[in-house]
This record gives sequence, C-alpha cells and structure tokens, in this order.
Amino acid sequence: MDLMQTYGKMSEEYLKRKLSDLEGIYGEFRARGLKLDMSRGKPCKEQLDLSVEMLAYPYKDKDFKTASCADVRNYGLADGLPEAKELFAKMLEVSASEIILGNNSSLSMMYDTFSRAMIFGVYGSPEPWCRLPRVKFLCPSPGYDRHFAICELLNIEMITIDMRDDGPDMDTVERLAAEDDSIKGMWCTPKYSNPTGITYSDEVVDRLASMRTAAKDFRIFWDNAYVVHHLTDKPDRLKNILEACKNAGNPDRVFIFASTSKITFPGSGVAMMAASENNINLIRKQLGIRTIGPDKINQLRHVQFFKDIDGIEQHMIKHAEILKPKFDMVISILESRLGGKNIASWSRPNGGYFISFDTLPGCASAVVKMAGEAGVVFTPAGATYPYGRDPQDRNIRIAPSMPPIEDLKVAMELLCICVQIVSARKLLGD
Amino acid sequence: MDLMQTYGKMSEEYLKRKLSDLEGIYGEFRARGLKLDMSRGKPCKEQLDLSVEMLAYPYKDKDFKTASCADVRNYGLADGLPEAKELFAKMLEVSASEIILGNNSSLSMMYDTFSRAMIFGVYGSPEPWCRLPRVKFLCPSPGYDRHFAICELLNIEMITIDMRDDGPDMDTVERLAAEDDSIKGMWCTPKYSNPTGITYSDEVVDRLASMRTAAKDFRIFWDNAYVVHHLTDKPDRLKNILEACKNAGNPDRVFIFASTSKITFPGSGVAMMAASENNINLIRKQLGIRTIGPDKINQLRHVQFFKDIDGIEQHMIKHAEILKPKFDMVISILESRLGGKNIASWSRPNGGYFISFDTLPGCASAVVKMAGEAGVVFTPAGATYPYGRDPQDRNIRIAPSMPPIEDLKVAMELLCICVQIVSARKLLGD
Repeated sequence: MDLMQTYGKMSEEYLKRKLSDLEGIYGEFRARGLKLDMSRGKPCKEQLDLSVEMLAYPYKDKDFKTASCADVRNYGLADGLPEAKELFAKMLEVSASEIILGNNSSLSMMYDTFSRAMIFGVYGSPEPWCRLPRVKFLCPSPGYDRHFAICELLNIEMITIDMRDDGPDMDTVERLAAEDDSIKGMWCTPKYSNPTGITYSDEVVDRLASMRTAAKDFRIFWDNAYVVHHLTDKPDRLKNILEACKNAGNPDRVFIFASTSKITFPGSGVAMMAASENNINLIRKQLGIRTIGPDKINQLRHVQFFKDIDGIEQHMIKHAEILKPKFDMVISILESRLGGKNIASWSRPNGGYFISFDTLPGCASAVVKMAGEAGVVFTPAGATYPYGRDPQDRNIRIAPSMPPIEDLKVAMELLCICVQIVSARKLLGD
Repeated sequence: MDLMQTYGKMSEEYLKRKLSDLEGIYGEFRARGLKLDMSRGKPCKEQLDLSVEMLAYPYKDKDFKTASCADVRNYGLADGLPEAKELFAKMLEVSASEIILGNNSSLSMMYDTFSRAMIFGVYGSPEPWCRLPRVKFLCPSPGYDRHFAICELLNIEMITIDMRDDGPDMDTVERLAAEDDSIKGMWCTPKYSNPTGITYSDEVVDRLASMRTAAKDFRIFWDNAYVVHHLTDKPDRLKNILEACKNAGNPDRVFIFASTSKITFPGSGVAMMAASENNINLIRKQLGIRTIGPDKINQLRHVQFFKDIDGIEQHMIKHAEILKPKFDMVISILESRLGGKNIASWSRPNGGYFISFDTLPGCASAVVKMAGEAGVVFTPAGATYPYGRDPQDRNIRIAPSMPPIEDLKVAMELLCICVQIVSARKLLGD
C-alpha cells in the first residue's frame, strides 16, 4: 500500500501509474453527477432547528414591555434593547455602555463602520478617511473573503500579512503600522480564525494593543465571529482586547464585532459591536440620525430564549454536538487519504466553522476547479487572500457545517482524489 | 361669546381681559401636572396589537421554505425574499426587478443611499459626491425633521422650498435645479405629506419627472411613507413617479422609499426602496458586499400574514378606524376653539400621521414652550424646517396617533389656550 508514501519520493513510473488509477477514480466520481456545495460556512438545518422555539417569543407571552422599554414593537432605542445589551455585553466581556446592538448582520456593522470612517473619520481622526490620498489596511491571510471585499469596494489598499499558529506575523505588523501613517487599521478574526482555526495568543493580543502606530486613528477591526463557537469541551481562551488596549493606553484602538448568526439564525440573528465609550458615544450619535432603532422584538426574543450567558453556552454545546462529527469526519478522511504523503496540510481547530487546507504551492486553483467539474463546489481558491490572490496558490477553505455527513464524506473523498491528481501532475512536471 | 371673534379686531381692553382669563385657565392646566407626549408620529398600542398575530408566523407552520428560498433562516438573498418583493412591489406599483427589501427602517435605507452616493456616487455620477466642494439638496418645508437631519450630518446644504397645497413650489424647484449643478437632489414626502398632509398633484409629479436639472445625477428621494395610510374611504391618488420619470426620459431620477413601520411594527417592519433597474442593479451589487441578507424570517412573516396587497389594504382600514376618531377630535377642538379667530390655520388630511398647524408669524416657539411648561410635549417648533429654523416661526406639527383620545383632548385644549395667549400677547405688543 502506498497510502503513507511521500509523493516526492515515488519513481516517475510509479507516480504515472498511480496518476492513471486516480484519474480513473475521478472519472467515476464525475459520472455520478454530484451537486454539493462546500463553499460557505452556513449552519445546517439541524442547527437552525435548535433555535426555532425562539420564534414563539415574545408572541407566546404577548408581553412587549421590558423593565427598560415601554413597548419593544414601537420606535426607539437606536443602540439596542438594554436587556439584550446586558446579555451580549457579557458574551463579549465588555460593559453595557461599551456595546451597540444592530440588526441581523455584523458584516453590515463592519461595513457601516468603514462607511462612517470614510465620511466622518473615526473618534479622534484628524479628517475623514475619504479625504486622504490613500488608505491602507493590514490583512492577515488567509482570512475572511467578505472582509477583504469591503476594503476592495472602498478602494482601501490591502497589505497581506502572514498568519502563524498564534496569530498574524507581529514583527511585520508592528513594523508597517509604525512606519506608514496611511495604514489606518487591520482586520482580525482572532478566535477560531476564519479559515485557519487558530486563536491569537495573549502575547499577540498584547502586542496589537500596545504597538506604536503612525496613524493616530488606527483601528483594529476585531471580528470575534466565533466567540462562543467551540467544538470541544476544552475551548481556546482569547485575551480581552478591549482591556488590553485600555491597559496599554490605547483604549480607542479596537472595534469588536460579533453576532448570533451562527448561534440562532444566520439571516435573523442579532449583530453587535463593542468599543471604548469614546467610540461608542460618537457612533451612537451618528446612528441616531441613521435609524429609528434596530428590531427590538427580535432582540427581546433572544433575551427571553437564552435568559442569560449560561443559556447561550448551553445552546452552543448543542451546536457542537452537530458540528463535531462533521469536522471529525473531514479530518479523518484527510488523514487516511493524504496523511504522510507530503502533498497537503490542514488545520485541526477547536472551534469555528472552517478547516484550512494547504496544497503544494501552485495547486489550489486546479484542485478547486477539478472538484467543481465533478459537481462539488469549494470556496474559490485565492478567496481567502486580498484581491482573491493567494501568492502561493495553496489555500483551500473547507466548510463542513452545511452538508449532511454522507455528502460531506463524498465531497472529501473527491477532494483527496483531486489533490493527489493535481499534485502528481505537478511532480511529473505537467 | 367671543368664540368666533377675530382677535385682530378686538379692542385692546377687551383683549387684555380675555388674556387674563386665558392665563387663569392655563394656570389650572399647569396645576394638573400633565405629562403627555404629542411629539412623534408613533402608532398607539391598539394599532400595534393589530399585527401581533403576525408574530406567530412562520413559527406556527414551522415551514421556512418558500418557492424561491430553501430556508429563510439561513444566509442569502441580499436584496430580499422574492415572495416579499412581489408583495411590496405591488404596494409601490413597481415591478419586482425594481425593488430591494431591507431590514426594519426605511430611514436607514435613505441614509445608506446618501452614504453610498457620498462614497461612490449614484448610477451615472461623474464622481463621488464627497469629492465635490459642496452638495446641495432641495427641501420642501415644512417637511420631515429626520430627512433634514441626514443632510445636516452629511454636511449637505439644504435649500428650503415652500410647500403648497399641491406639492412644492415647482417654479422655484425648476429654476434652482436647472441653474445649479451642485444641487444633487430633493427630498419629497409626496403622499399625505409630513407634516402638511397634502398629496402632490399629477402636474407636480410630471414637472418633477421632466424638469431639466443641471446635475446629471440629480436624485429625488421620494419617501412614500404613507402610501397606503388612508384616513378616509376616498383616499388621495398619487401619480406613479417612476412611470412618469420613464415617460419623461429620466428613468434613473427617483429613489422611492417606504416601509411597513406604520403598517405592522415601527421597530420590526420591512423597509424597501424602489428605482429603475439601472439604479437597483448598482445598489444590489454594493449591498452584496455590505450584508449577508436582510431578515428573511421577518419578510416571510409579513407575506404569510398579509398574503396579498388586498390583505394590506384591509389591514390599513383597521388602522384608520383607530386613527380617524383621533384626527377628528383634534380638528373638531381646533375648529371650536380657534375657528374664525384668525390666529391660526391647520390641515385636514385624508391620510398620514400629522396635522400641520400654523400660528401667527413669530408665535410657534412660544406656544410649544408654554405647552411644554404645562407638561405637554409637542415637536419642537422649527423642527419641520432645515436646520430647525422656521423662517416665520409659525409651524407646529401635531401627531395625534399615540396618545389615548382623552389625553389628546386635554393636550389640544391646552394647545388652544397657549395659542390664544401667545397670539393675544403678540397683538398687544408684548
């Protein structure tokens, strides 16, 4: 058996024979007319069903009053229902005066934060960012494609920063932030990072909080999307960045974002942002002009369903029970089919929604294309890098959450065949 | 009885005696320690209760699929649930390809439309509006204070345009729009206008659609907030502006906004915008970067509750049954207390949320202040004008919807006393 044999050490003849076998298997996959989507980190139906009872609230009680709000159905409270702020402030480990609740999409809150920065600047900005000849952002990569798409739309120049096992390459981050005042900030997905699954170390958090930045209004966009999204009972711990920034004398440096999109419903959750009171007070003022308030009925629904932070944590255990077998299956197939072959590596995350998969350099696009031609859609290769360009063409983001486990198995078996074919062809110099 | 006597024709002595009587009555009001809020056009509890059964959907059926959407709970459909687009396109008399649905606030959609115009320009803009030395907007007034607040925040210079019984003063609008290319657009609340209650005539709609504008990217922000909000069974008809713009060869001129805020729930309705396909296609592209989709569960709730446009119309009759007696009461008190006195005039709208009340020039602020000191809050005088400055200090916006009818009666009696006192003092040269 060649299962554990390193591809690079195979003879050319052996490798050619092997390639021919693999192509045969690929042909069989193709003939099956598969139609599977592995591209987005969407919760599956069983996960969505976990929160369905929430939709009975507050209808069930027909009580639309809270201690702080005369009628949640009516106008008002542009920064959110106080009871919901209390709950989610606990989830983000900030105080209720440091949080604003929005509607259903934290991506919208991030976009709107950029949009305000362009038009008005952020708290303490000498001028609106749109007045500057250029604005640059540091983008640890692989990262989240939708973050990068916002920068691209707004014509913000993205600088790719390598991701390590403990977070972004901080030597480079510190050097660039200190020397270039057109670098106005940085994207981070600090916990169960999208897609690499790692959690920033305490040292990285402290260095981000305390580093010197040439721009006085430098902002870290801290997308804590997977704050309670553990896959194990030994969850990663992420150091509190807002505290770290305060301690370092840079209290206004960070905007924290999160949502219940992958706690309750992706389309109908509650999004939130947290920051220093200076930041929040300015944003609250601007928000009061933009909106008559977020959907407070939905916020009350969340409060009545979860009751407290413990309710959220218990709920996340149910998600993990659905997700963990899928992650385990993906990793087990990768290990059994590709382990020891030295043609790929992959992450083994303790939480989040993705497994990050690296091929040999120059192979990722071809692998995704091949899988697509056999009916299995993966996130486009390169999508996890600024401008969709993976400099090494290596990274593929695997999203195991959505497909049923039997489909997932088929998709992963196919992926492993494609990886081996593309790698063999590469090694053969095709 | 002096009820119908014109104040201006009273002798000074008589007027002084009358003033003294009125001040006595005001003192009695003040002693009652009232606490009433007449300031905002909020639906009352009975109106909110009309839609409560909606909150049972789609929970009741636990069916989250539609013909067009595999699971409304999940991500996707950034421009709205197709079934909901069909329904609301009928309400706005546009096609489903000309509408985008948002979350709960049409004000947010208006703000975001400005925000995009500042950063990117609108469809066909030679450059982003934020690059221009100045941007001006035409503001028919009295108008909606929150419209003006958006312009003020964005540093868009507002030009006050007089409101007539058939819409804005079109001679002035046409002249200014044609001569000044920094005038990029215009606010309109064309049906049951906030606050004057009038509906634009067909001629005004046609002139708006066909007028020459110096700015090639001139946009009418058409806030059709009260599109189905009739108070009588002989509702006003508003000519279809999008059709008129197409017929005039200016298909891209108008952005139409509306919401179900005053149909279902102010905090939890569905907001929408409509425009030409050129406009909508560009906005949809930008929206796809901003959001993972609006709250489609809430959109499905609305579709299941109303079923069709007839369902919406029937529902609005129930709102009218609650609102009409309040409007009638306000107008009847105004007529019986102030009629024939030549110190005030007021609107008698066929729909919408407001009665517009004009005092003698220079009296509105003093009246609102006096009423406030006796515990009844009206919208601040001037609020219905750009920068909060009513050039004649005459207009007061009366919002009869929220208070119970007995409170409304007290508030209006007090208002009539305050108006008479302030007018008498004015005529006496105080």
